Amino acid sequence: MSEERTEITSLGEFGLIDHLTRNNETTQAGTIVSVGDDAAVIDSFGKQIVITTDMLIEGVHFDLMYTPLKHLGYKAVVVNLSDIYAMMATPTQITISLGLSNRLSVEALEEFYEGVYAACEHYNIDLIGGDTCSSNKGFIISVTAIGEVTPDKFVTRNGAKTNDLICVSGDLGGAYAGLQLLEREKRIFLENPAVQPDLQNKAYITGRFLKPEARIDIVNWLQQNNIQPTSMIDISDGLSSEILHICKQSETGCVLYEDKIPIHAETKEMALEFNIAPVTCALSGGEDYELLFTVKQEDYEKLIKNTKITVIGYMTEKSEGAVLVTNQGNKHPIQAQGWDAF
Amino acid sequence: MSEERTEITSLGEFGLIDHLTRNNETTQAGTIVSVGDDAAVIDSFGKQIVITTDMLIEGVHFDLMYTPLKHLGYKAVVVNLSDIYAMMATPTQITISLGLSNRLSVEALEEFYEGVYAACEHYNIDLIGGDTCSSNKGFIISVTAIGEVTPDKFVTRNGAKTNDLICVSGDLGGAYAGLQLLEREKRIFLENPAVQPDLQNKAYITGRFLKPEARIDIVNWLQQNNIQPTSMIDISDGLSSEILHICKQSETGCVLYEDKIPIHAETKEMALEFNIAPVTCALSGGEDYELLFTVKQEDYEKLIKNTKITVIGYMTEKSEGAVLVTNQGNKHPIQAQGWDAF
Repeated sequence: MSEERTEITSLGEFGLIDHLTRNNETTQAGTIVSVGDDAAVIDSFGKQIVITTDMLIEGVHFDLMYTPLKHLGYKAVVVNLSDIYAMMATPTQITISLGLSNRLSVEALEEFYEGVYAACEHYNIDLIGGDTCSSNKGFIISVTAIGEVTPDKFVTRNGAKTNDLICVSGDLGGAYAGLQLLEREKRIFLENPAVQPDLQNKAYITGRFLKPEARIDIVNWLQQNNIQPTSMIDISDGLSSEILHICKQSETGCVLYEDKIPIHAETKEMALEFNIAPVTCALSGGEDYELLFTVKQEDYEKLIKNTKITVIGYMTEKSEGAVLVTNQGNKHPIQAQGWDAF
Repeated sequence: MSEERTEITSLGEFGLIDHLTRNNETTQAGTIVSVGDDAAVIDSFGKQIVITTDMLIEGVHFDLMYTPLKHLGYKAVVVNLSDIYAMMATPTQITISLGLSNRLSVEALEEFYEGVYAACEHYNIDLIGGDTCSSNKGFIISVTAIGEVTPDKFVTRNGAKTNDLICVSGDLGGAYAGLQLLEREKRIFLENPAVQPDLQNKAYITGRFLKPEARIDIVNWLQQNNIQPTSMIDISDGLSSEILHICKQSETGCVLYEDKIPIHAETKEMALEFNIAPVTCALSGGEDYELLFTVKQEDYEKLIKNTKITVIGYMTEKSEGAVLVTNQGNKHPIQAQGWDAF
């Protein structure tokens, strides 16, 4: 090992990936999109295959104390499908590799697989392989999803142009609010096991965290209505982080309006209870798995017919930077505050 | 969670996979081979795509105390490519997901990626994506490899017929002997750090464990010589375990001859130093990443021209079971004693 030592934290997750793949050259004629998007695209005799992979680690991405295993299996699949949809592609198959500690029983794994199969059925995909090994500590899940797309109809992060409209599906910040609630209830329970958490009237936000869905409906609707987004990404790390990915890769700036960002009433209520501005949950929280995308201005009339899609801003010249216009009309630079796990 | 508790150890790795995937049904027209082989096969407009995934966990699959990170990166790629070759397919791309503890520096990861890129270059494949996240404990590596194959020319584990010849490439047991040596030197070093291990004259077996290669040469030669194996598997868990996979899935028995099993002189020497029968290293050791395959008797004359391939037995009726004929002429049933990590 060399004698220098640079901490991973000094680069951050995305800086680290950029650094380690800076000299990566692809030589296969079939490699169309490589490292740096939601998914890679490979050509296969005129058809295009889309592939993505995600790892979930116990204690980092999930806490088995409040995560039902069936939900976890479902979510492990969905977060990967979300990356395929974010390319405007259709997922077709998945593989799953598991690192298992002996703390997990066969019955627990059956519950996990029930969730996996439920997601496969709901999204009409096949589980086609994987690997199972033992883990000294904690449950490790690595899923790879494969999809297909009509040649050259995939949507990357680098096609947004100045004046394109910025859109999001659904509402944002719910998963983060749900996680804060689950973490609080866990602390209370650990301090006093007699107090049973009451999450009944918080079903929306806890559901957003524990059992997210991928936006197949949005992708289908865009395709049916002949709206080809100019760029697209799924929101796994928070709106700030994702719009900055699009700005960087499209070489643009952007303006977002705080008052346009869709936030569910239950999310707002929970955020205020925690003394967090609701917009912070949307900007810096993650795991909503909504789609963030840009469209040409001419698609506006068609777009607003879908009530699940909200226009939250527009793209600008790169020199104008990435800006949030607050409810008070102030302009703030947008900074990445995604869940940087390091 | 249900109240019953069945330990994972009661099923073993392969029993567990069988159990959890027993109701797995595939619905995609493109899914040709699913769970249960070296790799899955999917159809893509007349061409076929092969996909496989493997997870490596620090403390289970590797020990950073004696594993150079560059070798580890190389090996993490090679073990996946080996599964693609074991389908008689050609790997084209890989994705890598990493779980990183903050014990690893950026420089350490650069060394790891040097090995990854070296493998990509050697085997002419592209690194096209992945995921990087933090891990509370230990280094976790999950690689997915994608390959392509001429339609219906892939080779599975279930096509062996009675009287087919059983062949292996290279020699067996070396990686296991190398691992035993590395583990012994580690213990000695921990007891007395002044004693530096001398591995110079054990370069073959330590290399077999630390930096294995996938048998692209064997696959190319078989293709060039129009030998289509009836079944094939790569030897990651030891010869016993792998031949039993072929017997089970092909519904056959087999006879293996101990004196035919190719074992390197250095492997034999090391095994005897550890008071292990050399054949045990071959049968029950793992990680040699050689190919085990069956061919029709009529291919015998063509086959023996390749000195890297050894015929070690033949397939029999299922009712005759799986049998090893020892050097003394005794017959022993073959039992799976792969590295069952649970």
